[in-house]
Amino acid sequence: MKPAVILLSGGLDSATVLAIAREAGYACHALSLDYGQRHTAELAAAARVAKNLGAVEHRVIRIGLGDIGGSALTDASIAVPESPTAGIPVTYVPARNTVMLALALAWAEVLGSRDLFIGVNAVDYSGYPDCRPEFIAAFEQMANLATRAGVEGARLRVHAPLQHLSKAQIIQRGIELGVDYAQTVSCYQADAEGLACGRCDACRLRREGFRAAGLADPTRYG
Amino acid sequence: MKPAVILLSGGLDSATVLAIAREAGYACHALSLDYGQRHTAELAAAARVAKNLGAVEHRVIRIGLGDIGGSALTDASIAVPESPTAGIPVTYVPARNTVMLALALAWAEVLGSRDLFIGVNAVDYSGYPDCRPEFIAAFEQMANLATRAGVEGARLRVHAPLQHLSKAQIIQRGIELGVDYAQTVSCYQADAEGLACGRCDACRLRREGFRAAGLADPTRYG
Repeated sequence: MKPAVILLSGGLDSATVLAIAREAGYACHALSLDYGQRHTAELAAAARVAKNLGAVEHRVIRIGLGDIGGSALTDASIAVPESPTAGIPVTYVPARNTVMLALALAWAEVLGSRDLFIGVNAVDYSGYPDCRPEFIAAFEQMANLATRAGVEGARLRVHAPLQHLSKAQIIQRGIELGVDYAQTVSCYQADAEGLACGRCDACRLRREGFRAAGLADPTRYG
Repeated sequence: MKPAVILLSGGLDSATVLAIAREAGYACHALSLDYGQRHTAELAAAARVAKNLGAVEHRVIRIGLGDIGGSALTDASIAVPESPTAGIPVTYVPARNTVMLALALAWAEVLGSRDLFIGVNAVDYSGYPDCRPEFIAAFEQMANLATRAGVEGARLRVHAPLQHLSKAQIIQRGIELGVDYAQTVSCYQADAEGLACGRCDACRLRREGFRAAGLADPTRYG
């Protein structure tokens, strides 16, 4: 089996991506970032999901993004909004997908892997520049110039299988592949046991996804 | 003054880049990464250099690259070579420049800066894919698609002013700009006081640079 690096946050989207990568026949090396996020319950969820969806291993890289601030998810002085806001939300972590993919690329280089998977989704998060297909394509092109594998003629690929799916379609695909969404945590301010607030943007999008998919919402709310 | 983010390792090259950026009129925000490198004396050097070359501020982001291994600089079980080796050396940190530029980009986004500076050099390190001009250009293109500034029509730039200079030319330029190289630490295995080993690749390149520039080597050897 070819090794792949899967960015796994512990949320709904990345759990689905892991199931898709495994179904496609990759040996899945799951990578989570501990970037000082408030919702460390996500990391516990990532460990559970990695185990239950058959990842070969799961590693966590700690990174002190709180030192540069700029996001409600890394800076405790910025409140997580509990009602919809206009524009790019304060929960946006600056250059997050660039940073996550850069670290996935580093691990891929150590593993000799040429396949990175990320759960970006252009439909739900159209306001985030780094969720767009053109960003993913540009990162892939850069990655092929950045690494030994690329220079030696191998083709590094950044897979974004959720790119054009709605939240409901993502959930439907995950259910087909055996994802247990009760194990995942999407909430931006989940408590230590992983109970969701039910009010933040992530909770709203997730609940709406289950509703649109016509499925019962297994989320554990606090 | 326009803000710029300067990647500052504490070594000779990045100190020169900081002096060049300041000379060009930028308000310089210096960024160092603590990626579990053995030579933490470099971080102390970075703090000294930032202060003495007039950086507006200096921040250090901790990042646990030791968790993925793959380099003598982040994995204590791999020895730093003390004689020249063929191919990409074991001191190469996987995707290091991609990771460093990604974090510089994140901070730039917080600061509202559109200028990143990095001390890559295609001459001395021609074996490193991520030191080549085509890598820098590809990162810049990706960065413009990754961020709000880029989407809104601003042009993010990645400056690599040492790109085509020899080590001797870098040193000459730095001396003109007032860099005190005695404060910098390049050695891959410097001791806690920053004394250099004189034997690793970094020490050899540096010593040869001073020799070729016809200048006394101010490095403090152990």
